[in-house]
Amino acid sequence: MAIITLTTDFGERDHFVGAIKGFILSEIDNATIVDISHLVSPFNIMEAAYILKNAYKTFPKGSIHIIGVDSELTPINKHMAVLIDGHYFIGADNGILSFLASEINPEKMVEINIHDRIESVFPVLDVFVKVAGHISRGGTLEVIGKSITKLKMLKDLSPIINNEETQITGSVIYVDNYGNVITNIPMQLFERYKRGRNFELWARNHKFTEIYRKYSEAVNFDKENPNNKDGEKLAIFNSANLIELAIYRSNLDTVGGASTLLGLKYRDTVTVNFT
Amino acid sequence: MAIITLTTDFGERDHFVGAIKGFILSEIDNATIVDISHLVSPFNIMEAAYILKNAYKTFPKGSIHIIGVDSELTPINKHMAVLIDGHYFIGADNGILSFLASEINPEKMVEINIHDRIESVFPVLDVFVKVAGHISRGGTLEVIGKSITKLKMLKDLSPIINNEETQITGSVIYVDNYGNVITNIPMQLFERYKRGRNFELWARNHKFTEIYRKYSEAVNFDKENPNNKDGEKLAIFNSANLIELAIYRSNLDTVGGASTLLGLKYRDTVTVNFT
Amino acid sequence: MAIITLTTDFGERDHFVGAIKGFILSEIDNATIVDISHLVSPFNIMEAAYILKNAYKTFPKGSIHIIGVDSELTPINKHMAVLIDGHYFIGADNGILSFLASEINPEKMVEINIHDRIESVFPVLDVFVKVAGHISRGGTLEVIGKSITKLKMLKDLSPIINNEETQITGSVIYVDNYGNVITNIPMQLFERYKRGRNFELWARNHKFTEIYRKYSEAVNFDKENPNNKDGEKLAIFNSANLIELAIYRSNLDTVGGASTLLGLKYRDTVTVNFT
Repeated sequence: MAIITLTTDFGERDHFVGAIKGFILSEIDNATIVDISHLVSPFNIMEAAYILKNAYKTFPKGSIHIIGVDSELTPINKHMAVLIDGHYFIGADNGILSFLASEINPEKMVEINIHDRIESVFPVLDVFVKVAGHISRGGTLEVIGKSITKLKMLKDLSPIINNEETQITGSVIYVDNYGNVITNIPMQLFERYKRGRNFELWARNHKFTEIYRKYSEAVNFDKENPNNKDGEKLAIFNSANLIELAIYRSNLDTVGGASTLLGLKYRDTVTVNFT
Repeated sequence: MAIITLTTDFGERDHFVGAIKGFILSEIDNATIVDISHLVSPFNIMEAAYILKNAYKTFPKGSIHIIGVDSELTPINKHMAVLIDGHYFIGADNGILSFLASEINPEKMVEINIHDRIESVFPVLDVFVKVAGHISRGGTLEVIGKSITKLKMLKDLSPIINNEETQITGSVIYVDNYGNVITNIPMQLFERYKRGRNFELWARNHKFTEIYRKYSEAVNFDKENPNNKDGEKLAIFNSANLIELAIYRSNLDTVGGASTLLGLKYRDTVTVNFT
Repeated sequence: MAIITLTTDFGERDHFVGAIKGFILSEIDNATIVDISHLVSPFNIMEAAYILKNAYKTFPKGSIHIIGVDSELTPINKHMAVLIDGHYFIGADNGILSFLASEINPEKMVEINIHDRIESVFPVLDVFVKVAGHISRGGTLEVIGKSITKLKMLKDLSPIINNEETQITGSVIYVDNYGNVITNIPMQLFERYKRGRNFELWARNHKFTEIYRKYSEAVNFDKENPNNKDGEKLAIFNSANLIELAIYRSNLDTVGGASTLLGLKYRDTVTVNFT
């Protein structure tokens, strides 16, 4: 059984995703196809990278992850197949792969070179599914591409630490379904520089002085009615181990979420000051 | 083959659903995963209950239904696994399960107690999938929880009958994709109290004096052009056997639906008067 | 293994799709269920036809495609099962099937007549899945319906050529996830009438004098910075071989797409003048 996942900006209404799945079922016996997301904002590399990085790890090793975001082949946007952490990723060299490879060194990287054999106007289908089929049958990456040693880097990924090591400056990289605002500041980085000091986290004019591990830690169930906490702001280390700013039990359609209530959006600055 | 369904408020853009599916495929051989809905409004218990109750019955007995709505473990929100009608349900004891159990007595109910073995920041993944894996391998509920006898009740579920038995007062519990407005008044209840009398159904200032079994019963195809009926209001007993107020061939994006044209929304009152 | 696809206007929030999948898994052993789209605009026949026509071809021959759009059985809306191009389609005779059959003659067409055996308030589930089950077990169409020879036609499908053969008048039949505007003018038709002449393509007050095969052909990568092309309008023959008006790297949520920036919408006229 081959597991093939799809992460794209194709949306869910058009025929694109259905056509790809049909071709996977035609090319690969016993394929198990899993949608990770088709609602990546069009051409948003950062969003695709965040979603895929936080989804792929639970899949069995050997899974094949197809990335259909900004994937048209051009002289500056090559097609790649990469083996990282025991997982195969197929996509364009537009920065997404470098984000996946930022903590774990890729075991293998090739630039796909089967295009001369394929007349392609829809490369995620024509090229990436063909490559996935090859991998699913136990083929090696070297057969469908030439080895490379470097991936295109995604900019603005890492938070900055000042020289005095008293401040971390990060930014908002994602806003989720609940309006929770995810920053690029990992728990490990925060802990490494905190060294027992106090801290203030600032996002616009909003201050946070505690970072929880779970949303419900914001409530003292012995003394408080949790319903009174609805709509309160809080910071947590989320399940991706990044600092996230949230509203307790938020709903963008009704009470609002951190994004709307705190006025935070993609790329906004978030600062941690240690004192 | 284990069938695992997912009903959540996670949305379809983020990594949550993909991560859960990956973990299911890692934990359970030959799992067939079916999305019931990921578009439950955040923390909306009633909506999740309505969707799941109307979806689960067509699945084969023995299917395992994971509910990811308001599922963080707290002192007032325990994790449950329940066997009802030959189906397994795993979720928090927040009222959803009581709605599912409102017509059919649960065969077994346990409070999940495997949390000491799991460091969880994402319980639908860490805890519920583990429990699903246990059940899928033929394990009994008693191994992963302690028996309980009562579920937390969902309020505002049942319509009220006045003492004279001349009036049923119900409410809107769901608005569907077409803008159709679903009430909590079942056909059986309506028929039991009607006893051959006439009736008027009122929703705001809109009156209905007939309840159809199909949308198209509103049209007399021998005498009428169905296109002239587009946009007309009607009441039917829907496929969930509940009274539903609808607009013939409605489309929220163009002509509007019952919710917009009749100005009805979640929790609005609907009254049936027998005369 | 039976492959069953679903193309509906049920949306993704309600219980309808989940209930259908449950029933498929109950009725058909080893079914592989694939969602093509559930976001067809309610009752939009043209949209459903466009999506399905462009998705089905990549599936293996023998796949069964269920169409859940405007499918209530009425005297003027019969249920059909049709074999076209080696694929089975099950749906109402509302014009969608005629669009699928517009280029390839159906091998078999029957009007489904099993309704007397089924009490149906939800025909996509009650009737179409039953028919799919019959086909998946190798049953013939004649067993579940009576042969027919004609399908209801979908209007407004074909572009018009003037008598002088100097002009093609088409229309917008679909707007996709990127805001790209798809016309009903096929590449083959365009080429047949072009005969080496120059042309101007007009949509409202927007003129196009080139039609590319890929979005990136609009950029000369030797001389131009592709980022400077973002937001530029272009015409291409898309992967469905239809003329499409697009914005280079468009995003409806940010810079806008062809639909918003050029002010084009469903049913708008598009004209090609040959000179």
